Amino acid sequence: MPELRKDPIIGRWVIISTERGKRPSDFLIEPEKKRGGFCPFCEGHEDKTPPEVLSYRKPGTRPDTPGWRVRVVSNKYPALKIEGDLHRRGEGIFDLMNGIGAHEVVIESPDHEKDLVDLDVKHIEEVLWAFHDRILDLKNDARLKYILIFKNHGSAAGASLEHSHSQLVATPIIPKRVAEEIEGARRYYEYKERCIYCDIIRQEREADKRVVIENEAYLAWEPFAPRFPFETWVLPKRHALHFEEPKKDEYFYFAKIVKEILQRLNKALSHPPYNFIVHNSPIQDDNNGELHWHMEIIPKLTKIAGFEWGSGFYINPTPPEDAARFLREIDISNL
Amino acid sequence: MPELRKDPIIGRWVIISTERGKRPSDFLIEPEKKRGGFCPFCEGHEDKTPPEVLSYRKPGTRPDTPGWRVRVVSNKYPALKIEGDLHRRGEGIFDLMNGIGAHEVVIESPDHEKDLVDLDVKHIEEVLWAFHDRILDLKNDARLKYILIFKNHGSAAGASLEHSHSQLVATPIIPKRVAEEIEGARRYYEYKERCIYCDIIRQEREADKRVVIENEAYLAWEPFAPRFPFETWVLPKRHALHFEEPKKDEYFYFAKIVKEILQRLNKALSHPPYNFIVHNSPIQDDNNGELHWHMEIIPKLTKIAGFEWGSGFYINPTPPEDAARFLREIDISNL
Repeated sequence: MPELRKDPIIGRWVIISTERGKRPSDFLIEPEKKRGGFCPFCEGHEDKTPPEVLSYRKPGTRPDTPGWRVRVVSNKYPALKIEGDLHRRGEGIFDLMNGIGAHEVVIESPDHEKDLVDLDVKHIEEVLWAFHDRILDLKNDARLKYILIFKNHGSAAGASLEHSHSQLVATPIIPKRVAEEIEGARRYYEYKERCIYCDIIRQEREADKRVVIENEAYLAWEPFAPRFPFETWVLPKRHALHFEEPKKDEYFYFAKIVKEILQRLNKALSHPPYNFIVHNSPIQDDNNGELHWHMEIIPKLTKIAGFEWGSGFYINPTPPEDAARFLREIDISNL
Repeated sequence: MPELRKDPIIGRWVIISTERGKRPSDFLIEPEKKRGGFCPFCEGHEDKTPPEVLSYRKPGTRPDTPGWRVRVVSNKYPALKIEGDLHRRGEGIFDLMNGIGAHEVVIESPDHEKDLVDLDVKHIEEVLWAFHDRILDLKNDARLKYILIFKNHGSAAGASLEHSHSQLVATPIIPKRVAEEIEGARRYYEYKERCIYCDIIRQEREADKRVVIENEAYLAWEPFAPRFPFETWVLPKRHALHFEEPKKDEYFYFAKIVKEILQRLNKALSHPPYNFIVHNSPIQDDNNGELHWHMEIIPKLTKIAGFEWGSGFYINPTPPEDAARFLREIDISNL
């Protein structure tokens, strides 16, 4: 059973894989990339993954057979496991619990050659609905407090398989960065009685220096103090706590803006590896409306030294105003 | 002038290089490694760096000429600049100030072929004294609040030059991770009236599961909840707030334990790229004895996905108990 352990000084939880612990020699060989080799995510290879927990597929086709457009399976090498008790406990000064949770893979398309950005907007919308439906299901588990949606695209961004996919990790704790945002938004709300994200949206649309694009429901912009060059955030323009509570057509507009931002990043930066992560409100606690959910997209352009991990202090060589201008000026009309 | 900008939600400061802003095309070519090429840090090339601010050298030799053992110069491409006012100001909802600070390079040896681990203990001790003397000097600048000492070793760990060196960055803010440790230690102290680091040292020496080595004055161990495989911390065994206030012979013992830990990591992991960072107490504020200074050594073994940066949630494939055992059992008697 993996363990969740808490740093006693700053209170950050980490997952420790106690079962398949890596020995020193395991780090000496870079993991083989599967480019060109057998792909368990391709259509027709459904028996090479754990059974599907969700799929959108042609009427009349059976689970775990071809005919699907989007398919969700458990991760074959899960960071957390769904069976068991949390068993919160101490070890002297230290705190730990069992690594209970869920770890799922959203296979975004049956076609190995298509990245997320290549799918049409309607198809990307189905990927968003898959996140939605899985969140609703996992919400029923009272042990879980948070569901992280994220994507690693490209080997340098941490993807171990090339076939386009994203992931859900459901955890019994709220991840540190999200907890900090909730706390920061709460402090601002207590002081101003307004949502800080809504205030930022208002100010940024007026200033028009860091906004890249917007549509009927979403805004994409470069944050004022980004850690990374071309870090891009996408927010709903209305105050919305939960990703999984869209209004009619909102996922269509979200799919549309995500596709366009990825097209612009791809053209500006020659198809960089990237990650995205959705900062959503926690699934169990009523959080009094502090967080305004959003997606953070981070192209992997720079080497992050241990200095940054060790200090929490980042040096960003590209001002967000420059990044926004580059991304706005990119011509994607021929894509 | 670079800018220090504050994330309005979580309060993290980042440095934005507004002058030499990188354009998209700058990210397309990986920076050339200087292996085998001309090295500005080698003895005889003193005119290829900014003038030295400190050196330990043969009596009778002049600054910026050969004869030095350890040499400190300003970084040629500083992240922060020493001239000017902080000029703290707002931009609507946002906060920023000028990027005032110092950024120095400690060239650890005149010999290009020697890494820090290859230097003898007395020489490593001189590197520590160089950190010490530079801290004492920079402390005089009332605009500065913190001095980070760190090292990037190897290209994958962010080093842009091969010749062994470490760095000092003096900042007008306290970096986030350090501020969190100070706050965590303060909370514990209020509750227990004891130093949390001292309590951890006591418990870890008794449990003897995660300790790697110790000597007269220092302990090296794998923390209970490490983010990274083989992450190793070195602490003074006595309660000590400030790196720059050693007792007699303490730097000798610190040099000794750092050399031995690096030898063990090198042998266990085949000379991995690594970073170290010193978490020291702030230089201006009296911090009431919360922090216990220490060094964190992080071998660069895994790819850190944006998922980790985006969530603050880490998955560590090597339990620290295993890492400690591997490192203890390494035979370095023939080195």
